[in-house]
Amino acid sequence: MYLAKIKVTYKPSVLDPQGEVIKSALHRLDYETVEQVIQGKYFEVRLSADSLAAANGLVESMTEALLINQNTETYNYTVEEVEA
Amino acid sequence: MYLAKIKVTYKPSVLDPQGEVIKSALHRLDYETVEQVIQGKYFEVRLSADSLAAANGLVESMTEALLINQNTETYNYTVEEVEA
Repeated sequence: MYLAKIKVTYKPSVLDPQGEVIKSALHRLDYETVEQVIQGKYFEVRLSADSLAAANGLVESMTEALLINQNTETYNYTVEEVEA
Repeated sequence: MYLAKIKVTYKPSVLDPQGEVIKSALHRLDYETVEQVIQGKYFEVRLSADSLAAANGLVESMTEALLINQNTETYNYTVEEVEA
């Protein structure tokens, strides 16, 4: 069994209005040293696969097929073997 | 300058309907070896602080104050020093 942890964020060229709103809210709460906030999505996927390489391939394929919008978002991920 | 990476997920006891929907969609797309999907939120916060320990403290404080709902969500985070 493998556990994939996938972090999805907007591409740097894409405006992140939620991140801006959170930054403003943190400033109002006196966290004035905050310079930037990026809000993204996070997924954990448990799957079985024949090997770590196969699991990596499945994770990339399914992330690009369903989890992200490739026009506006980018992602990075890790996969580790875990107990079933 | 410090960069915090914060992953927010539902507590294990809380139903994650979005994760269930994504799992079903992946099965329909023939990713049948997927056993579980958890959907969460991901934040990157850039901030200045006097030390790594101070940055950690700020990140915990602001996450609990604004970024999560402590009744239903849990989080983990890393903080690293980065160039300004």
